[in-house]
Amino acid sequence: MSTITIIGSGNMARGIAARAVAAGRPVEILNRDEAKAAALAAELGANTTSGKLGQSPSGGIVVMALPFDAAREVVSTYGDALAGKTIIDITNPVNFETFDSLVVAPGSSAAEEIAALTPANVVKAFNTTFAATLVAGEIGGQTLDAFLAGDNAEATAAVASLVSDGGMRPIAAGPLKRSRELEGFQFLIMTLQANPAFETFNWNTGLKITV
Amino acid sequence: MSTITIIGSGNMARGIAARAVAAGRPVEILNRDEAKAAALAAELGANTTSGKLGQSPSGGIVVMALPFDAAREVVSTYGDALAGKTIIDITNPVNFETFDSLVVAPGSSAAEEIAALTPANVVKAFNTTFAATLVAGEIGGQTLDAFLAGDNAEATAAVASLVSDGGMRPIAAGPLKRSRELEGFQFLIMTLQANPAFETFNWNTGLKITV
Repeated sequence: MSTITIIGSGNMARGIAARAVAAGRPVEILNRDEAKAAALAAELGANTTSGKLGQSPSGGIVVMALPFDAAREVVSTYGDALAGKTIIDITNPVNFETFDSLVVAPGSSAAEEIAALTPANVVKAFNTTFAATLVAGEIGGQTLDAFLAGDNAEATAAVASLVSDGGMRPIAAGPLKRSRELEGFQFLIMTLQANPAFETFNWNTGLKITV
Repeated sequence: MSTITIIGSGNMARGIAARAVAAGRPVEILNRDEAKAAALAAELGANTTSGKLGQSPSGGIVVMALPFDAAREVVSTYGDALAGKTIIDITNPVNFETFDSLVVAPGSSAAEEIAALTPANVVKAFNTTFAATLVAGEIGGQTLDAFLAGDNAEATAAVASLVSDGGMRPIAAGPLKRSRELEGFQFLIMTLQANPAFETFNWNTGLKITV
């Protein structure tokens, strides 16, 4: 199976890596701090390698498990080295100073801004799944929904396969610009985690379409 | 208990009325076509009255169970007659010609536009709950989530009480401008209902925060 490269070694990197391992994919962790990448790879077990940010990603799918600013910087730095690859953008460009808006302009999205910086095919995914739920692979006994958006059908289908092989339900919501709605709504969900009215919400909720 | 006035007699009027009846509230249905209002009231049973659009609403809460254009027209026509009341705006201002955007500008919302037309306190609610799920009062055995947004705490609390008394979970998401995110995401959900990739979605899904 094709390797999944994950850039970053924080909580979201761990969560997405857990799903990729569950999907039976070889995983490569790259990080600016190589020791942190190695530690996460060791935690994930066999079939996982690590390396330093800047080296050529082994995976055909490269997950930017980074905050928005860092993701922009990394895709810019890699430049044409990412051509032909599929990038997964997970970012939620929340204005954490006000917690009252996004830092991208209305009618735009972090995913579209990142796509403008790279020749890779960008697919939005995992922005509505908190890290703890990805590690668990379920929530309250229910399958996780992972919403996807992308302009390249083949790239989106590859991410959908990763998602379903990892035990989640992919919901391909359309073109990359649907990231506007995905990022907007997850911003709303994030404000609820910090809201004392919802004491059971602790950065551990899922967002699900029920039928 | 305070009467709930519902303006409109279509599917959403029926669904919200069903929850209001379940909540034990007297319901008044007003419609341009008085016979349609009377027919829906008869269907809902005792403790339900009907009347003609234009007459003074009995309820302290007035649900605009109407499309966006009609809701704007009705609040404008009522004018100051709605002062002191709580209006529930349920609209999703989708551009149904393109099904690719909203008809309100990015950084705005139907709820805010309606609020600008009336002295009433506007609360966004029920825009993410399809009519069939409101009639059923649950979905796949799970409680319905109803997302609320509003600028007046007392008005939002009154709507939250109606929602919880009707057997749903109210999720008060913050100020009225959070309607931007609620309307944006429901637009995305609506596009999925018409997407052949999701054959079990048939204008009957729910949107739920899982824990």
